[in-house]
Amino acid sequence: MKLEYTLKQKSNKNNARLGEFTYNGKTYETPMFMPVGTNATVKTLAPEELKEIGAGIILSNTYHLWLRPGEDIVKKAGGLHKFMNYDGPILTDSGGFQVFSLARPKDITEDGVHFKNHLNGDSLFLTPEKSIDIQMKLGSDIVMSFDECIKWPSSYDYVKQSVERTLRWAKRGKDIFTSTDQMLFGIVQGGEYEDLRRRCAEKLVEMNFDGYSVGGTSVGEDKKTMYKMVEYSTKHLPENKLRYLMGVGDPIDLIENVMRGIDLFDCVSPTRLARHGHAYTKYGKINIKNNKYKEDFTPVEDKCNCYACRNYTKAYIRHLITANETFGARLLSIHNISFLINLMKEIRENIKTDTLEEFRDEFILNYYGEGYEYK
Amino acid sequence: MKLEYTLKQKSNKNNARLGEFTYNGKTYETPMFMPVGTNATVKTLAPEELKEIGAGIILSNTYHLWLRPGEDIVKKAGGLHKFMNYDGPILTDSGGFQVFSLARPKDITEDGVHFKNHLNGDSLFLTPEKSIDIQMKLGSDIVMSFDECIKWPSSYDYVKQSVERTLRWAKRGKDIFTSTDQMLFGIVQGGEYEDLRRRCAEKLVEMNFDGYSVGGTSVGEDKKTMYKMVEYSTKHLPENKLRYLMGVGDPIDLIENVMRGIDLFDCVSPTRLARHGHAYTKYGKINIKNNKYKEDFTPVEDKCNCYACRNYTKAYIRHLITANETFGARLLSIHNISFLINLMKEIRENIKTDTLEEFRDEFILNYYGEGYEYK
Repeated sequence: MKLEYTLKQKSNKNNARLGEFTYNGKTYETPMFMPVGTNATVKTLAPEELKEIGAGIILSNTYHLWLRPGEDIVKKAGGLHKFMNYDGPILTDSGGFQVFSLARPKDITEDGVHFKNHLNGDSLFLTPEKSIDIQMKLGSDIVMSFDECIKWPSSYDYVKQSVERTLRWAKRGKDIFTSTDQMLFGIVQGGEYEDLRRRCAEKLVEMNFDGYSVGGTSVGEDKKTMYKMVEYSTKHLPENKLRYLMGVGDPIDLIENVMRGIDLFDCVSPTRLARHGHAYTKYGKINIKNNKYKEDFTPVEDKCNCYACRNYTKAYIRHLITANETFGARLLSIHNISFLINLMKEIRENIKTDTLEEFRDEFILNYYGEGYEYK
Repeated sequence: MKLEYTLKQKSNKNNARLGEFTYNGKTYETPMFMPVGTNATVKTLAPEELKEIGAGIILSNTYHLWLRPGEDIVKKAGGLHKFMNYDGPILTDSGGFQVFSLARPKDITEDGVHFKNHLNGDSLFLTPEKSIDIQMKLGSDIVMSFDECIKWPSSYDYVKQSVERTLRWAKRGKDIFTSTDQMLFGIVQGGEYEDLRRRCAEKLVEMNFDGYSVGGTSVGEDKKTMYKMVEYSTKHLPENKLRYLMGVGDPIDLIENVMRGIDLFDCVSPTRLARHGHAYTKYGKINIKNNKYKEDFTPVEDKCNCYACRNYTKAYIRHLITANETFGARLLSIHNISFLINLMKEIRENIKTDTLEEFRDEFILNYYGEGYEYK
């Protein structure tokens, strides 16, 4: 079944939007944070745990699944949902980001990208058509176009010609996309250049995608620049389609970018931070390995209702992380994903009452303390 | 509450016994396999998963918890059950095995063992009194005496003097054991020497422990020797007390040693094998990383009803293990522990009908094929 988005409410004060979509008989609300399951598993967690946390869409990585186990095996297994036992919605990225970051590209041509497999050094070639083909075989619900993920900063001239290629790649992918039960998203690039973001967005909208992503963020740029990139992109996107900001998960960025019109976010941070012993709390991130938690028999966060906080203390989780026990990473992953999913819930409630700006100011005061400045 | 054992039934054909004990309002049957949670966590698993598998007693390691997080922290947390959120029975070993294997002893004296902390090289000293004191603070339900774990093979003369010291250590530990809600077990040593096993067992029985362990096995000896060590020990132990064979978990060894009068087993194998991609099945151990499972969309074991087998295929678990995803180790840990716990259930049923020998022969035929010989 193809997922269908409905816009429900817009803020009068900023560009925040409430929306919903139905999938497998269940209705999900946006804005939403999507946990990342790179290798067809959200690291350390079972699907049942993700559901208990309240996760909706989860993300999986085309590049990783292409290399291992291979899209044909996933297809033979009955698709990604059946393979990994997740009956909620799944989004796959295009592999573009990994090809440009992880695999060190050899050569970008008009046709596609030649690069080396980061696992074994084999020469590989990924094209827009191949990326879409893999994603159709994986059977995710939301498919991403293959784009060039440029470095930041990049010169105006470089970004300009890259945007044109990304547009040609988007068209090529769309042309071979024959699936009727998947959505296909176009990706807005254009760096920090307002006219290039506009050009890219408008041309993609002409091609009429099922939804739109904002790409080229979370690549080292400062927050002000990221927010501008988002503003320059979303204002040219249609209101009745989903908008997805790729790779962004810092709590304040979720709030700020919802105010700039974003509906979907993903980020590896909650699980990666968990593995290193870090936990989100209302009063900022804490490092559970800190000595002061050795005899702290309170939960990671006092009013948190997640499985980890209901049943375990900081002292126990600290012990697990210190002893390299994966149950520690699992408990903190549950907490961190819960934190972001609960934050999104609060964000949605504050869109309903149009109090998102007040909510943001209070969030900043709690999380960063007095005198926070966007860097 | 102190756990109380009741002997329910004995085989007429061998020394197998059925028994039960009640703990926290729940009745558990023996013989039983106890999963190992070295660092106050059964690796990769949550307590809820252990319960779903049907686990009863779990094991935790005095040596590891002494070093990290320290027994005083566990005590302040309210004891091991509360610390790790497990309300079933917990057994702690004495630390002896780890001191002699992991920590490389510096010097064994009459008073105790001087050795180096395997984590940071610090000089440490463990005595029978200290081990009991730590275990009282941990608050486990079954406490082990501190013994000398000798190498195999060891000369008659060495084992003889070691047994005498182990007996003196058992007495010293018992003398300072003041807990009224924990059981204290004595450990029968004596290597492969019948008269030394007898001497050790009889002297321990004179001291009247709450239960008895058979130690000095799983240290490299062949199966026939192990079975002899058990026979030489159990025949001198009282029928109305629990008997625990330490560190043994190979499926055939569970069957054979139940037939020699053992009630409790523990072993790290099911979780350690899981981390390396190995799974128990009725037809022998399999290595899930094998290429032939790449497109095998059947469960690890066809008629297994564990969470892993109900929901996931060999192909998916193979993918997880290959990609170093801990959810793979978690699924195989669930399967492997389930396998041993289900095996114990079948063993108990076959004690009821006194058909354990037939059951063993059929098990061997399935697991090893024709022509199996005990090595």
